[in-house]
Amino acid sequence: MNSEIFSLSERLVSSSYVRQGLQARRAHEQLIRLLLQQGKCPEEEWSESTVELFLNELAVMDSNNFLGNCGVGEREGRVASGLVARRHYRLIHGIGRSGDIAAVQPKAAGSSLLNKITNSVVLDVLRFTGVRSVSSCFVVPMATGMSLTLCFLTLRHRRPGARFILWPRIDQKSCFKSMLTAGFEPVVIENVLEGDELRTNLEEVERKIEELGAENFLCVHSTTSCFAPRVPDRLEELAVLCAKHDIPHIVNNAYGMQSSKCMHLIQQGARVGRIDAFVQSLDKNFMVPVGGAIIAGFDENFIKEISKMYPGRASASPSLDVLITLLTLGANGYKKLLAERKELSALAERHGERLLHTPHNPISLAMSLNRLQTHSTAAVTQLGSMLFTRQVSGARVVPLGVEQTVSGHTFRGFMSHACYFLGHIFNFKRSRCFTLYVFTQSSVSEDRQ
Amino acid sequence: MNSEIFSLSERLVSSSYVRQGLQARRAHEQLIRLLLQQGKCPEEEWSESTVELFLNELAVMDSNNFLGNCGVGEREGRVASGLVARRHYRLIHGIGRSGDIAAVQPKAAGSSLLNKITNSVVLDVLRFTGVRSVSSCFVVPMATGMSLTLCFLTLRHRRPGARFILWPRIDQKSCFKSMLTAGFEPVVIENVLEGDELRTNLEEVERKIEELGAENFLCVHSTTSCFAPRVPDRLEELAVLCAKHDIPHIVNNAYGMQSSKCMHLIQQGARVGRIDAFVQSLDKNFMVPVGGAIIAGFDENFIKEISKMYPGRASASPSLDVLITLLTLGANGYKKLLAERKELSALAERHGERLLHTPHNPISLAMSLNRLQTHSTAAVTQLGSMLFTRQVSGARVVPLGVEQTVSGHTFRGFMSHACYFLGHIFNFKRSRCFTLYVFTQSSVSEDRQ
Amino acid sequence: MNSEIFSLSERLVSSSYVRQGLQARRAHEQLIRLLLQQGKCPEEEWSESTVELFLNELAVMDSNNFLGNCGVGEREGRVASGLVARRHYRLIHGIGRSGDIAAVQPKAAGSSLLNKITNSVVLDVLRFTGVRSVSSCFVVPMATGMSLTLCFLTLRHRRPGARFILWPRIDQKSCFKSMLTAGFEPVVIENVLEGDELRTNLEEVERKIEELGAENFLCVHSTTSCFAPRVPDRLEELAVLCAKHDIPHIVNNAYGMQSSKCMHLIQQGARVGRIDAFVQSLDKNFMVPVGGAIIAGFDENFIKEISKMYPGRASASPSLDVLITLLTLGANGYKKLLAERKELSALAERHGERLLHTPHNPISLAMSLNRLQTHSTAAVTQLGSMLFTRQVSGARVVPLGVEQTVSGHTFRGFMSHACYFLGHIFNFKRSRCFTLYVFTQSSVSEDRQ
Amino acid sequence: MNSEIFSLSERLVSSSYVRQGLQARRAHEQLIRLLLQQGKCPEEEWSESTVELFLNELAVMDSNNFLGNCGVGEREGRVASGLVARRHYRLIHGIGRSGDIAAVQPKAAGSSLLNKITNSVVLDVLRFTGVRSVSSCFVVPMATGMSLTLCFLTLRHRRPGARFILWPRIDQKSCFKSMLTAGFEPVVIENVLEGDELRTNLEEVERKIEELGAENFLCVHSTTSCFAPRVPDRLEELAVLCAKHDIPHIVNNAYGMQSSKCMHLIQQGARVGRIDAFVQSLDKNFMVPVGGAIIAGFDENFIKEISKMYPGRASASPSLDVLITLLTLGANGYKKLLAERKELSALAERHGERLLHTPHNPISLAMSLNRLQTHSTAAVTQLGSMLFTRQVSGARVVPLGVEQTVSGHTFRGFMSHACYFLGHIFNFKRSRCFTLYVFTQSSVSEDRQ
Repeated sequence: MNSEIFSLSERLVSSSYVRQGLQARRAHEQLIRLLLQQGKCPEEEWSESTVELFLNELAVMDSNNFLGNCGVGEREGRVASGLVARRHYRLIHGIGRSGDIAAVQPKAAGSSLLNKITNSVVLDVLRFTGVRSVSSCFVVPMATGMSLTLCFLTLRHRRPGARFILWPRIDQKSCFKSMLTAGFEPVVIENVLEGDELRTNLEEVERKIEELGAENFLCVHSTTSCFAPRVPDRLEELAVLCAKHDIPHIVNNAYGMQSSKCMHLIQQGARVGRIDAFVQSLDKNFMVPVGGAIIAGFDENFIKEISKMYPGRASASPSLDVLITLLTLGANGYKKLLAERKELSALAERHGERLLHTPHNPISLAMSLNRLQTHSTAAVTQLGSMLFTRQVSGARVVPLGVEQTVSGHTFRGFMSHACYFLGHIFNFKRSRCFTLYVFTQSSVSEDRQ
Repeated sequence: MNSEIFSLSERLVSSSYVRQGLQARRAHEQLIRLLLQQGKCPEEEWSESTVELFLNELAVMDSNNFLGNCGVGEREGRVASGLVARRHYRLIHGIGRSGDIAAVQPKAAGSSLLNKITNSVVLDVLRFTGVRSVSSCFVVPMATGMSLTLCFLTLRHRRPGARFILWPRIDQKSCFKSMLTAGFEPVVIENVLEGDELRTNLEEVERKIEELGAENFLCVHSTTSCFAPRVPDRLEELAVLCAKHDIPHIVNNAYGMQSSKCMHLIQQGARVGRIDAFVQSLDKNFMVPVGGAIIAGFDENFIKEISKMYPGRASASPSLDVLITLLTLGANGYKKLLAERKELSALAERHGERLLHTPHNPISLAMSLNRLQTHSTAAVTQLGSMLFTRQVSGARVVPLGVEQTVSGHTFRGFMSHACYFLGHIFNFKRSRCFTLYVFTQSSVSEDRQ
Repeated sequence: MNSEIFSLSERLVSSSYVRQGLQARRAHEQLIRLLLQQGKCPEEEWSESTVELFLNELAVMDSNNFLGNCGVGEREGRVASGLVARRHYRLIHGIGRSGDIAAVQPKAAGSSLLNKITNSVVLDVLRFTGVRSVSSCFVVPMATGMSLTLCFLTLRHRRPGARFILWPRIDQKSCFKSMLTAGFEPVVIENVLEGDELRTNLEEVERKIEELGAENFLCVHSTTSCFAPRVPDRLEELAVLCAKHDIPHIVNNAYGMQSSKCMHLIQQGARVGRIDAFVQSLDKNFMVPVGGAIIAGFDENFIKEISKMYPGRASASPSLDVLITLLTLGANGYKKLLAERKELSALAERHGERLLHTPHNPISLAMSLNRLQTHSTAAVTQLGSMLFTRQVSGARVVPLGVEQTVSGHTFRGFMSHACYFLGHIFNFKRSRCFTLYVFTQSSVSEDRQ
Repeated sequence: MNSEIFSLSERLVSSSYVRQGLQARRAHEQLIRLLLQQGKCPEEEWSESTVELFLNELAVMDSNNFLGNCGVGEREGRVASGLVARRHYRLIHGIGRSGDIAAVQPKAAGSSLLNKITNSVVLDVLRFTGVRSVSSCFVVPMATGMSLTLCFLTLRHRRPGARFILWPRIDQKSCFKSMLTAGFEPVVIENVLEGDELRTNLEEVERKIEELGAENFLCVHSTTSCFAPRVPDRLEELAVLCAKHDIPHIVNNAYGMQSSKCMHLIQQGARVGRIDAFVQSLDKNFMVPVGGAIIAGFDENFIKEISKMYPGRASASPSLDVLITLLTLGANGYKKLLAERKELSALAERHGERLLHTPHNPISLAMSLNRLQTHSTAAVTQLGSMLFTRQVSGARVVPLGVEQTVSGHTFRGFMSHACYFLGHIFNFKRSRCFTLYVFTQSSVSEDRQ
């Protein structure tokens, strides 16, 4: 409310109380001012009331909320349902323009600000979680895989003759599909086993580049976050190779922001070699609903090129979710969440199993299932359903030797990230609270850490 | 947002768009400014977004929403549940102080403004609906009956020796109880039948005053809104009598605001005679949830006296509901609702019944049930349940000759508002859309108007 | 959703997933079933989703939400504003009937259930917080003071000749006013100083009863929760006196539920003597918005009599707030909140002051302000505003010797609860987190505990 | 609530009221049952309470809302912010699986149902708005342009050798970009002027196919909805050509669902020739926030192929919006909206201008600006800003002869859809309420229709 309104209020209510109220308003405004000025994730969490105040202010600036507006175009932010309008805080215009998903919209100053601020805050988070020299990023309302596809499609305009993408194997369907969807042929590099860990086969990478010709590769497509026993790719070495052979380098960092190790790898890779863009999932890193990603990089022009490649305006919903989340957490809250993940090695031993030693994988753990070794695959699979009925979701029992065909390509030992035998494993996320379920032949009992 | 924030926004988004947003914000602020300046119900409806903007601004001014506030008292507006905080727009302090339910609270400038503005807007509505000379009113979070009780308790301090309340009979339990709860003895005046209408027996009123002594009456307690065949009391004549005998006069105008006739009667009564206070229900007149009333009058001091009689702070919930409703309707919207009530006399005749001729009753209609005359009371009652199962709620089938005892007092012909025979009647509200159900011996068929 | 809908779902989505969803729904239903079956506050907190599921289910049962309903009465739960409907979860009918605020409404099965369950859950909380033998209670949407007034008005019908209420002094306006509003004359008993504590003067109580005659007293009106240095009344002794002289006994337990000591006093009083009703504030005990109270007692018939005294239906808003709050806290959460209040005696000494030794007051603390002793009252008052600007709200600086007139009655030493000198004191609530502000002549510095 | 809960309720509240409540619940369930059974947009609108009841039921079935769930995977639907959870009705899992955006998710029966039902309801709407023989469709959370890109990328796998897309010119950036993003070379066919209308140059189309070779074309990319004076492409003839030459045919029907003419063209095209997929925007056709599209077609396998091309799970937000909107409108409400668009030819003539005669364009109108003909382009442009400040948004003033370069391709007469002179035009949507602004040299005055 403006000063005139406050003056009028003083006629109704004691002016000292009103002045206190005015001060209180300024405290909220001060937070908003800092956010706009610095473009950074605030150190301390915002209260829900500040967040909603801010979003309401943004919505007021969009033309669909102008009092007395008479829209006769086809892009007016009309909404038929009040339920829908409210759940989007009346921010209806989406983000971007047909020319550029990061551009400002004439009719939607509020939505445009939302878009700019979100990208700026997310950039700040990328920096303080470890990729200090990242120069540009934007939120895109597409899955990580589709976002990778968009990166590949952008590169095509730079390397029209390229046919292949060089890809150290990672057993996750959508990142494999991201290359096929973009119309390229993945050149799969099988990993090598070092101790318990599956790591990038650098020799094979270099051999393939030479075999097929650097100019025929669109890019190298590497991965940080993955399930044990696979560990993050040797990003530094790959980045150096890319620089040497002048091949672009796209990194799938899907859920790597949670791990300072993954972020450090990217930072180092870019420092010593070449990384063109790295892509991360919103839901996995920010605990928001599924459906958004961040495309980031070290060369502002290239990132701009990608954002201009998206044809049309896009949903603001993922941007809104991530902004609300970061404001209500604050940088400190976000860092605290990252710090809470704990180890649980002792637990496994108590039950005659062992955690695979995968120190390079900061995100997931794998445990042997030796005591089930003698049983049939069916028995191992049953284990999964036993967990399921006990409401333990997300743990994955991986039987040995499974073959799977993804879009025509056959992977042996799928989910083991390797084509050779490893034994059954039990795979789960390093997470804050954990209960290990002890597997005996016919039952599952509980052991909580 | 203040001008500094807008300037910062111009660095992120084209300044012409931001300036448009700023203008849009001013349009909302202009509405709020007018509301505070004039203290009147706005002519035109407000959008939901303006209403919520305004409520959020009020909430920000309350100390429980101060950022960094450290409350160590017992009146801090603490809220344990987020669901609860949100549904009250974080306005937690209620209204009033222990000294006066209409007073301003030091810790709650926003809630205090809400209270003041609501009372001011409601006063405006009382005026434009017909009681032009009303000088003061306040919303109280109590039922109409309990609000009448509060008026009586206030009068007691002015007339400590009084024992009786003179009350022209109206068959509605809570207004009868309002007198007993306050500790007084109702002197019931039976109505007289004029044509189809039951009207105030003025001779009997005057006779009783003389018989028991004017000084022994706390007040006359008259009624406007009622169910046909009773019609509103002869307010003008009663007001003149009250002035003549120096007896206070409290009017139960429960759902009378919907009727220009009821409001006119009060205006006229106050002009030619004496009316000390008149009480109306919030839910029935403003379509809000049950539980609030407006106490209004022509002498500011007396109304102030009543508001000071309430011991403690009170719920702001009914005030909030009525304010939201009036802002989202606007004065024009409210007047339009009043104008929409229609007649339906023709329908009854089509079925061999007749609407009782009660021109003085602007609110409800009664229809004869002659074709059921020969049937037993049980059959008549059955009619009610037939309507019920057809989801027609609110229509009342009144069998003849029912006796009911309310708090020890026996009323003959209860719900007929008279102690003598009238025949079965069918009673319902004059309402916008109506379907008359035709009653035959064993079935109910439909005839819509 | 019913089983037929689940079957249909299985045609669209794998039946094993649907069956899991069905099980999940049953988990929510199981909580609701237990609530209805036992009528107790659940041990564990409910998630917001279970709470909202439950409230939506209740709303569906109210006639205003019947699909295709055609209301023609005046009590139809019509709502003009969608904002209003939503914030009340579409529960519009309020609670009670004109005959009884605790009664069931024909058109509102859901609202009626809400009312019944809330009263039942609150009764359970009264029991587990210490008044184990309480037999009946109800939530009323009125301030504590007005609720006390309702108790007094009910007693009047039992003791029509009584004029006085015997009241050990407590310096809180609305509880003094509650007696005047009901039309009675308070007989004020000054407290006696024992050590630092101000306690009930039992001899004077008995003397007054004999002087004015037991039959002329409507009741004794005692108090548990109060600000130091006053401590809770000697309830046991007062209850015994009431039993002996056959005088009703109403206890003002405004914010006493937070203290096992206050609750214990009531339990003991009722066991050894007579307590007719005890009244507590909703906001202070349950952290909900201002405006509700609980009237409770040991004789179901008397509590029923009070609930029947309220003329009309009443707002459901306070009941809704308290139910939501108790379900989202659970009994364990509520008990945990009670346990969190801590002492802070050491802090005061560090600054040359002392906490008054008031072991019988479990709710508030008083600290001497000796170092300010030599200063003028103005200086002391300034202290209050210094705290205020530092956003410390709720702490009360009480200068010595203030006189205040409440409704015509003059209290010397108001807020000190005593008519004689005590020195300036600094009064605040025993609360979880606390910062002591050190008062020097010209500044306030901080010392956090 | 299940029957057991209803039985328990009957112990608290009269069983007849509870039974009515149970019936009321069944009325809501009946609507849900029908929806699941028929998979169609309900004829009549649903109340907001039914919609929310349904969404809450779906949410309960998702594993992130299971009471007591312990998630240890990376796909657990964790949400950090309550604001975010609530605005998505706690439906967090998004839609689809990495293998297929239309697939069912194991952990999210509710979200999966939402996805299935939305696609099914949208299919029904496509049918009743005119494309009766459409066999399959799905909602995708991407802009129309990006959705077209996805179609092209899918076709690439079928026609690996194709380089060109044949595209009758339409001056809208994102649909031009959709081809470039997919990596293809648009072959632009300039339109021919017939009367006032710009129509497809079929001869040129056929000539180009022969010139470049049918096998080198990925597809024909035609357009229905467009701004006057361009009119929808001659779909029937194009479809016949595509069938004849065995070239796939993708139709950009961005905002064509609003027009029975556009829908009819698609239906006819598919009947007599070949249409592989047609794409429409969610926001423009359903009045929901920006960011979603529907991809539909006549061959279930091809549509399935496209849905499998999306790599990863996707945002459910657009699906949720469109489902809420269609349920709250009902088929009748949606049809009514379509019927409300009106003509306004008379108005133009009153001011010495004329509406261009574009009977084949059912969506937008163009008006001559002859009276401005003599003025400079600057003056014409000024007109736009004059409208803007009068809050008329969406009307487009198109000066003659503008050149624009989109992604390297230069369009002469951009926004006129033609490379030759047409005069200034004023372009706007056929919409319900309209005010024509009369343009004089220095001012704009108002003339409302």
